[in-house]
Amino acid sequence: MYNHLQTDELIKHALVEDIGTGDITTLSTVREDMRISGRFIAKEEGVICGLAVVKRVFEMVDAAILLTRKCGDGDKMRKGDVIAQVNGPAQGILTGERVALNFLQRLSGIATRTRQAADQISGTKAVIADTRKTTPGLRVLEKYAVKTGGGSNHRFNLADGILIKDNHIRAAGGITKAIERARQNAPHTLKIEVEVENFDQIKEALQCKADIIMLDNMSLADMKKAVEMIGDKALTEASGNMGDKDLREVAETGVDIISIGALTHTVRAMDISLRFE
Amino acid sequence: MYNHLQTDELIKHALVEDIGTGDITTLSTVREDMRISGRFIAKEEGVICGLAVVKRVFEMVDAAILLTRKCGDGDKMRKGDVIAQVNGPAQGILTGERVALNFLQRLSGIATRTRQAADQISGTKAVIADTRKTTPGLRVLEKYAVKTGGGSNHRFNLADGILIKDNHIRAAGGITKAIERARQNAPHTLKIEVEVENFDQIKEALQCKADIIMLDNMSLADMKKAVEMIGDKALTEASGNMGDKDLREVAETGVDIISIGALTHTVRAMDISLRFE
Amino acid sequence: MYNHLQTDELIKHALVEDIGTGDITTLSTVREDMRISGRFIAKEEGVICGLAVVKRVFEMVDAAILLTRKCGDGDKMRKGDVIAQVNGPAQGILTGERVALNFLQRLSGIATRTRQAADQISGTKAVIADTRKTTPGLRVLEKYAVKTGGGSNHRFNLADGILIKDNHIRAAGGITKAIERARQNAPHTLKIEVEVENFDQIKEALQCKADIIMLDNMSLADMKKAVEMIGDKALTEASGNMGDKDLREVAETGVDIISIGALTHTVRAMDISLRFE
Amino acid sequence: MYNHLQTDELIKHALVEDIGTGDITTLSTVREDMRISGRFIAKEEGVICGLAVVKRVFEMVDAAILLTRKCGDGDKMRKGDVIAQVNGPAQGILTGERVALNFLQRLSGIATRTRQAADQISGTKAVIADTRKTTPGLRVLEKYAVKTGGGSNHRFNLADGILIKDNHIRAAGGITKAIERARQNAPHTLKIEVEVENFDQIKEALQCKADIIMLDNMSLADMKKAVEMIGDKALTEASGNMGDKDLREVAETGVDIISIGALTHTVRAMDISLRFE
Amino acid sequence: MYNHLQTDELIKHALVEDIGTGDITTLSTVREDMRISGRFIAKEEGVICGLAVVKRVFEMVDAAILLTRKCGDGDKMRKGDVIAQVNGPAQGILTGERVALNFLQRLSGIATRTRQAADQISGTKAVIADTRKTTPGLRVLEKYAVKTGGGSNHRFNLADGILIKDNHIRAAGGITKAIERARQNAPHTLKIEVEVENFDQIKEALQCKADIIMLDNMSLADMKKAVEMIGDKALTEASGNMGDKDLREVAETGVDIISIGALTHTVRAMDISLRFE
Amino acid sequence: MYNHLQTDELIKHALVEDIGTGDITTLSTVREDMRISGRFIAKEEGVICGLAVVKRVFEMVDAAILLTRKCGDGDKMRKGDVIAQVNGPAQGILTGERVALNFLQRLSGIATRTRQAADQISGTKAVIADTRKTTPGLRVLEKYAVKTGGGSNHRFNLADGILIKDNHIRAAGGITKAIERARQNAPHTLKIEVEVENFDQIKEALQCKADIIMLDNMSLADMKKAVEMIGDKALTEASGNMGDKDLREVAETGVDIISIGALTHTVRAMDISLRFE
Repeated sequence: MYNHLQTDELIKHALVEDIGTGDITTLSTVREDMRISGRFIAKEEGVICGLAVVKRVFEMVDAAILLTRKCGDGDKMRKGDVIAQVNGPAQGILTGERVALNFLQRLSGIATRTRQAADQISGTKAVIADTRKTTPGLRVLEKYAVKTGGGSNHRFNLADGILIKDNHIRAAGGITKAIERARQNAPHTLKIEVEVENFDQIKEALQCKADIIMLDNMSLADMKKAVEMIGDKALTEASGNMGDKDLREVAETGVDIISIGALTHTVRAMDISLRFE
Repeated sequence: MYNHLQTDELIKHALVEDIGTGDITTLSTVREDMRISGRFIAKEEGVICGLAVVKRVFEMVDAAILLTRKCGDGDKMRKGDVIAQVNGPAQGILTGERVALNFLQRLSGIATRTRQAADQISGTKAVIADTRKTTPGLRVLEKYAVKTGGGSNHRFNLADGILIKDNHIRAAGGITKAIERARQNAPHTLKIEVEVENFDQIKEALQCKADIIMLDNMSLADMKKAVEMIGDKALTEASGNMGDKDLREVAETGVDIISIGALTHTVRAMDISLRFE
Repeated sequence: MYNHLQTDELIKHALVEDIGTGDITTLSTVREDMRISGRFIAKEEGVICGLAVVKRVFEMVDAAILLTRKCGDGDKMRKGDVIAQVNGPAQGILTGERVALNFLQRLSGIATRTRQAADQISGTKAVIADTRKTTPGLRVLEKYAVKTGGGSNHRFNLADGILIKDNHIRAAGGITKAIERARQNAPHTLKIEVEVENFDQIKEALQCKADIIMLDNMSLADMKKAVEMIGDKALTEASGNMGDKDLREVAETGVDIISIGALTHTVRAMDISLRFE
Repeated sequence: MYNHLQTDELIKHALVEDIGTGDITTLSTVREDMRISGRFIAKEEGVICGLAVVKRVFEMVDAAILLTRKCGDGDKMRKGDVIAQVNGPAQGILTGERVALNFLQRLSGIATRTRQAADQISGTKAVIADTRKTTPGLRVLEKYAVKTGGGSNHRFNLADGILIKDNHIRAAGGITKAIERARQNAPHTLKIEVEVENFDQIKEALQCKADIIMLDNMSLADMKKAVEMIGDKALTEASGNMGDKDLREVAETGVDIISIGALTHTVRAMDISLRFE
Repeated sequence: MYNHLQTDELIKHALVEDIGTGDITTLSTVREDMRISGRFIAKEEGVICGLAVVKRVFEMVDAAILLTRKCGDGDKMRKGDVIAQVNGPAQGILTGERVALNFLQRLSGIATRTRQAADQISGTKAVIADTRKTTPGLRVLEKYAVKTGGGSNHRFNLADGILIKDNHIRAAGGITKAIERARQNAPHTLKIEVEVENFDQIKEALQCKADIIMLDNMSLADMKKAVEMIGDKALTEASGNMGDKDLREVAETGVDIISIGALTHTVRAMDISLRFE
Repeated sequence: MYNHLQTDELIKHALVEDIGTGDITTLSTVREDMRISGRFIAKEEGVICGLAVVKRVFEMVDAAILLTRKCGDGDKMRKGDVIAQVNGPAQGILTGERVALNFLQRLSGIATRTRQAADQISGTKAVIADTRKTTPGLRVLEKYAVKTGGGSNHRFNLADGILIKDNHIRAAGGITKAIERARQNAPHTLKIEVEVENFDQIKEALQCKADIIMLDNMSLADMKKAVEMIGDKALTEASGNMGDKDLREVAETGVDIISIGALTHTVRAMDISLRFE
């Protein structure tokens, strides 16, 4: 679970972005003392994510607005289900509505897609993981949505994981040198992951005791062979346009992790509306 | 065109978010004096958007990195086309790569989808417009992408347009009262738009001289009838799940504006890669 | 009414600016547990504006300070009237006093002057409007003060209104071209205002269906003629050193709006003091 | 002279405040490659202040804009004089114009009024000083304008000067106790100033070796007597609605400092325009 | 006492710095509803400082955490003494622990060392003062710790005290010119301090009526002679590696102030632990 | 190597903290056009660290100041050696001097102490590592100083390493459960470290395949036994008041890592001065 210290600035910024110098329509047409009550309704099936953000959005607009949750993050709702209820001053609720929905729909969209992916590989030992292909500024929330949907988090940034890619390998002059340098220079608390494209590279990575081997854009057959070759000497991660693959087939090759950029870079907002009574 | 004053903080924040306390992999495996050269390649057809952001991303990481554009924002590229070239210190380029791509792929995805929508209605008098259903924090850039794709911008925030929706109408006690209050209280520089659901409401809106009438979730037949009733007394805007409609049919009802939330809330990142030589 | 999201940073910044590394006089001479009570008194007649800011100033210094309003924003007070009462820890009240007064006196000064202007034209159809000639950083508050004084708000910034001035006209190659470009490129939610200096320009602006015509620095006779020529085809706005004009005469030409830069660029602070009991 | 570290945020904020999501008029009517040249002209006599701010405003909008000064801060210009020239991209210059003028007119207004006050007392030993009655957020610039106009700066904030007022005296239980506490607790680098209202208080202040004695709201006769009583044992400061007094008469009482809140709280913007060629 | 307006950003920043994208260990191993209770224990003798910061650290992490003080800032605790107790949600307490201790140990270390210095000179008229050799970003807190330990604060920054050093003297062309310029240009609320290295300089400084004379790197004998020469015509300050001197001997020369950079630039954290029950 | 994106805000903040509303002494005594040249001199032996920060400090004060390095970070200098030279406008150099020295002395102090520790264990396989006991706000720089001194970096924050301490173990209900939960919930890119106090805990940690075992406050004899028991099944880290231990003896027990909080929590600033010519 993320901490409000990490998201308050973002939420405040989103409100300022949307309100600008004032919600001129609401301020001119709605009386200041009017109160209103509304319900967030799922307009299609999906996994809800972001209720704490919705609560914070309204609190920031007006501390007198009350949000009552009717479900929790991670719950799957069906079309027509009530997600939460909001009560309080009409001006504030109407002013905060769009920002609340923009967060809720996006995060629920990510959680829903992640759940679908996780369901496809259920029963295998593999887990679905995210990537750094997130929307600028929203990473902590989007990774929380992946977790809420039943996925696993890959590294959050370039500092909390070592992932040696082809360019690093070339720059270092080979896998062995790259791993040696990383082991020498990086904090000892981080595992070392190496991206490989063929079996020779896998052998070299194993000799250097890489902790995780990323199988990049391999065919299912090669992937299977790679997994066997690696055994329990390292974790294996399948990567490369996984958003377009049959995830069950990938999982059945025996890989430990399937990382999917599309979980966050190609998001379909879940359809949710706020209906007033 | 947006101004760097509006986006520099966002770009800087995205870099800090991705780099964290340091790109540990690059710093340990790549020598500080190594130079590198790479090309941004379109891996599918699409409309490019965000080159100025990409340039700024690299400049912020290391002022010595040079970006050379091979096309302009708004150009349609085919699979395999070179979008831009980047040269300079290897450490900085590898560190900035992901953030640059995250912006470029997302904005190009929006521009591409907008272009498709605009192409569908070409020859009609209608224009495609965006909404406030944008990603929190990215509105200025996403609306720029819509414009780049050939769309038109709806209001940027709650302060630069008056849009009286059903809740405002109910709160004010009817369309007439709502419009009167808005005309009295809001800056005279803003047009007044009203959301209507039926023909009685249209009549009332016309009597009050609304400038724009939003036809919300109407059937094509009703929409056509509404457009005729309104004539040139107000602009007409078609709205409500337009992302799932046949846009040509909507445009042929004669509406002036078709606003589509999905342009920004349901984005498919354009597939672009950075290949090193 | 502005929202605290828009003003909290400003108020906090003003406090930090005034307190610096600490109110050394108060901290050394006043005991931490001492409580005090004071009253904000009008030392001359004027329209009060800014009570919510005063409240927030003290809350930020010390949440234990209580402000009790004795009037509302927009009320006209006479010399000697009590505006508000403040109770609580002496250190905090003395530390916040100057910032509270700086805001209250300035905003009340603007509201007072606006009220005087509005009174001068009462009974005519014209309204008094502000401009963008505001103090850097205080625009939202200063425009709120104009509204509190009975004035109307012109656009808040360059994004929420189109105002084509002589330089835009020259750059575009004439009024017609300028209006066409604006209509094509700007959000359809904004009206188009054009600044004109003679009757030919008015004719051209009317042909292009400009929504608002700004009559810049015209004689009263010309202004009257212009208003007749325009009729109800556009709104008319009188502009140009209106701060030095006889506003009643201007209003009687029949213009809709009189915009006055001096409302905010040449402010006389209302004389208000905080007296302790 | 202030440092850009202290004003860059303020200038940037003023630009963002004025530009909002974009200068829609300029962007739609003026071509991106058009260049323009304009001159800042004094439309009345006054002392110029703020040229470095004007330069920075344009630089921030577009680094390609060039400002050439035709005078320096502190120079007195007559009606029609050219203050500075600006050349460069038309879009940027038109977008930055209003913010540049808002700063320049306000700061020059303060410098002009200060110069008038300083001229009135020339030949006496007194100096004109400012107060903390400045516009929230602009203190460093406004105090710079006072200095530019020939005035002297009083303390910048509550931390760089000890000024014991009547409430501090009452809270401490008398002038003697207040001064003792201040001497014990405050940094030894600060002088101790005490506000007095009568001759008994002056005697007490002198006994405690106050460094500066503020004569608050005294008649000219009393002020003269007080100055004689104090001699060179302390500096004397005349205070209390000095903006409405005959400053020469005040200065001739022999006081060292005359502090005037109105220098900054009641500002008449100097009339300056930017004319394009 | 500092104000939370001055320290909240710093505390928040310290938390964000330490928590990064989340306390992954605590979040995975500790249940969200678990509550915990712990005590801050002195593991060596020392003067406590920073309890308000500790309180704020935990409040920011989770408003449900309660801190109960068992002593006050400035109290000397012995090994084993309980400083404060903390109760509340286990996740929040474990997440905030390190930041709370980092502040508390550092500030208590400074207070402890200052107390030792103050004790060494007790009975003399001298006071111990700090310098600007503080940790970047922590000045307000570190100077508060010096005060808590019984020391006195020298100027907080370059704006709230005039200290003319050898380079200023050389640049101005002598002590006399430097003092004259400072008297003319600086706010009259500030005393003028001059750094001297020999007796000729002292004479010159006295002739110019310097308020404070800093005796830089003088032998004890010279310092004594200087103090006698100066008498009560100015305050005297001993400076230059005072951290390594016998402070009693220095104080007995009769100087008024002994300023010690090492109080803040060479800090030994007080050993304090947080023990859970 | 840290990136300027991570330190620019800190450096700017340090300058604003020290300059306040202006370096009143320098501005009044030094002419604006005067140029000066100075040299940073080591006044004792030590390892230099922070030259890039010093450069940035001066650049921010005045872009015209030039810093020429005479050594590199990590170089050991002897008393009297020249570290760097600074040339440019006198006002800017004198204004930036203190902040530059505060950073340089502190970081060099850390690098020097780390080098001493590293030298003590040279020839063994152990490395010296830092902790999270850093100064709030300075972590990235302080960890860079440890690295510069020849040490190794432990985790930078709570997100880039899993370290299960006694409280986590108790909260989870034992080492096994804690490790299982961490493995399930945390990113797979992070190693799992467990703090143990006895041999039973070591056995349990090994059974759960902990990656790193922290030996907390063990006697040398126990530590040696623990190292033998663990073999190459996990990395071993010695911890607990290592700042007061004979590091060679600790290293000779065979541990891989010795982590020392005192490297950053108890810093002795290296004595460095800036001398002008």
